[in-house]
Amino acid sequence: MSKIVARVLKGFRDYMPENCLPKERMLRTIAGVFESFGFSPLQTPALEYAECLLGKYGDEGDKLLYRFRDNGDRDVAMRYDLTVPLARVVAMNGNLIRPFKRYQIAPVWRAEKPGRGRFREFMQCDVDIVGSADMMADTECLAVGGGVLKALGIDDFVIRINNRKLLTAMLARFDIDEGAPALGVLRTIDKLPKIGEDNVRQLLADENGLASPAIDGIFEFLGLPADALTDWFAEDETGRLGAEELNQVLAMADELGLGDKVEIDLSIARGLDYYTGTIYETFLRADEGLGSVMSGGRYDGLLSMFGGQDIPAVGISLGVDRLFYGLVEAGLLETQRSPTAILVGVFSEGERKLSYELATTLRGAGINVETYPGTPRMKKQLQYANRQGIVHVALIGQKEAESGHVILKNMENGEQESLSIDDLINRFKP
Amino acid sequence: MSKIVARVLKGFRDYMPENCLPKERMLRTIAGVFESFGFSPLQTPALEYAECLLGKYGDEGDKLLYRFRDNGDRDVAMRYDLTVPLARVVAMNGNLIRPFKRYQIAPVWRAEKPGRGRFREFMQCDVDIVGSADMMADTECLAVGGGVLKALGIDDFVIRINNRKLLTAMLARFDIDEGAPALGVLRTIDKLPKIGEDNVRQLLADENGLASPAIDGIFEFLGLPADALTDWFAEDETGRLGAEELNQVLAMADELGLGDKVEIDLSIARGLDYYTGTIYETFLRADEGLGSVMSGGRYDGLLSMFGGQDIPAVGISLGVDRLFYGLVEAGLLETQRSPTAILVGVFSEGERKLSYELATTLRGAGINVETYPGTPRMKKQLQYANRQGIVHVALIGQKEAESGHVILKNMENGEQESLSIDDLINRFKP
Repeated sequence: MSKIVARVLKGFRDYMPENCLPKERMLRTIAGVFESFGFSPLQTPALEYAECLLGKYGDEGDKLLYRFRDNGDRDVAMRYDLTVPLARVVAMNGNLIRPFKRYQIAPVWRAEKPGRGRFREFMQCDVDIVGSADMMADTECLAVGGGVLKALGIDDFVIRINNRKLLTAMLARFDIDEGAPALGVLRTIDKLPKIGEDNVRQLLADENGLASPAIDGIFEFLGLPADALTDWFAEDETGRLGAEELNQVLAMADELGLGDKVEIDLSIARGLDYYTGTIYETFLRADEGLGSVMSGGRYDGLLSMFGGQDIPAVGISLGVDRLFYGLVEAGLLETQRSPTAILVGVFSEGERKLSYELATTLRGAGINVETYPGTPRMKKQLQYANRQGIVHVALIGQKEAESGHVILKNMENGEQESLSIDDLINRFKP
Repeated sequence: MSKIVARVLKGFRDYMPENCLPKERMLRTIAGVFESFGFSPLQTPALEYAECLLGKYGDEGDKLLYRFRDNGDRDVAMRYDLTVPLARVVAMNGNLIRPFKRYQIAPVWRAEKPGRGRFREFMQCDVDIVGSADMMADTECLAVGGGVLKALGIDDFVIRINNRKLLTAMLARFDIDEGAPALGVLRTIDKLPKIGEDNVRQLLADENGLASPAIDGIFEFLGLPADALTDWFAEDETGRLGAEELNQVLAMADELGLGDKVEIDLSIARGLDYYTGTIYETFLRADEGLGSVMSGGRYDGLLSMFGGQDIPAVGISLGVDRLFYGLVEAGLLETQRSPTAILVGVFSEGERKLSYELATTLRGAGINVETYPGTPRMKKQLQYANRQGIVHVALIGQKEAESGHVILKNMENGEQESLSIDDLINRFKP
């Protein structure tokens, strides 16, 4: 075995314990909220037949796939998102009980140009409801998403919603062709919060080739309140339906007590072209520049791409890596190197058994405890606790054991006390 | 988007909710035990530079790598295990606090011939202690492994231990060359529990080319009790050291209260050639045919393969997929389709808000609750609960709301009762 330089691929990274520990806890909280709304976990393979993924993410997406020939010369690709695999699962399992409510928390891989906060491997975290066309399903996705943010200690967020049918009807109204021209216009409109109205008008003229009346019309549309949409689309069935759906979701969000967290924003288009109804994006008020931390929508057409009947579906996806860094920056999540509450020091080989027994007893009471592996002098063991950020060290030798006591050292303030094992348990048990 | 056949690659699989839900809970339990011993999580990328993985798993392993050229023409490979990535992390982070205790639960990929219970993607679940040569570290791996099995409700298991140094010394004693010949002999010995002594003797003669005295000597060695090992290896320093280490681990396991779970078994060799000291395998007494559910050992040489000084390390790996199926078969784990404790039915659009409020209240008390997304007739909602295995359905209409009561239906026995929301919470809160 020759010496090889240890390195990580560009766009990939290790999650070291100090970040991984709070991140795993965050993911457990999220999974708990998902389950509290009745969503079950699903896991799909990291590798799929390439043909199952190709053509689902647009030409650009296809180019970003990690795609290769496996040892059996199969054309395979790594998971690019969690939605297309869900569609595959639904297609393969005709007898799924509907509504099928699943969540999946798993990494995906995209060969994108890495940048600040943009990685080639990142975690996706999706909840979807398959088999319900009712706007209650769209609203439930809002509720579970809002529930996750609240469970993570975030209270100041806004979920901006729109409906793809409104955009489709609006584009048709100004004779913008479906496909590339329509997507081009939507992409330009999507930039509104970032670059402002004047620049968007300029781009719509220069890049999308729109005339002034169409541009004015688009901005008239973007400024409409929810209750004016039905009238504005009086002549267009798709538009009227979009208006109705959007207003239903707003009303139900109100009933769910989420009214103050939900706003309409007709400029939201979402990049992916499979959305057919509701679309959502979510921003932290304290840090809108972080970008959307939770997005999604309804995609009634997607699930039939593998054949079979059309199946309605709606879902929402949490940007967990982005959220994680947002939480750390906001001080809502602290990096933490060790899960250990108490390090049990070991005085000597002869007294090792006492330390083991104490550690086992404390663990039995639900306390995270470690014993130092070895019996170096105590200074070294205490130093380890200090460096790991373990605040408490318990010590038990022959003398302490005889009196049923332990010594408890606080590494932050240096204080030391003697207490019974029962008192120690009562103080630390979760 | 053309119609594509939805299918999964050979050797890969979807974990559908009924298995995924109990499996995720099992993984959470395992992570909890790991943390209770002071291990922190680490996550490494799914993709590595191929050169970081090549040559670490033997020629056979190299062939089983999912290896390809990425879009930037880099030679990359998918994670094959969690130990080599750990070695890379240690090499890249010279300032890691030692002992470095980490766990990682993540899928790995091997292009093996799929078979019963053998998949090309499977979960690995490793704990390792890096930077401690003390046998307390080896013993802690036993303890955390035993702790995991106990936390999963398994009490009847045996951890068989051996020491690679003993095998090395034994092979040298019979003039069996290092490298392929030695590994061949070890592989034959490893088959002892499966094919019996006579067949192993035959193979040692026919396939490994050993003469009778060597074969007799090997069986003499295999029958030695722990306390005779030091004498047997009186002339061989490596053998004496192995004997000392093994006896230390046995003594410490006793001190930890694990004495009745640990046995020596000198035939255990482990396939991978990087072990240097203690090696472990673990069997469920009720189902030894399941194979080892938890294996590992000490690998003091491996971490220096990326350069730098030799760093001692020891670890243990849980075969979580195997364990999962073992638990399901033993009736210790039940498949479960839905996490929901109570389905809140919705009588009508007008009463939807009451259902939403009830669901939110119950969720706030820590109860997993879902509302049916839509307002079809109640029969359909109850049918959904039945099919999902949700035992309880709560109903609240205008009439119930006015009296502060809800109707609770038990889907198993058909019983129905009226009770206050407080009583409902008290009955179901976790």
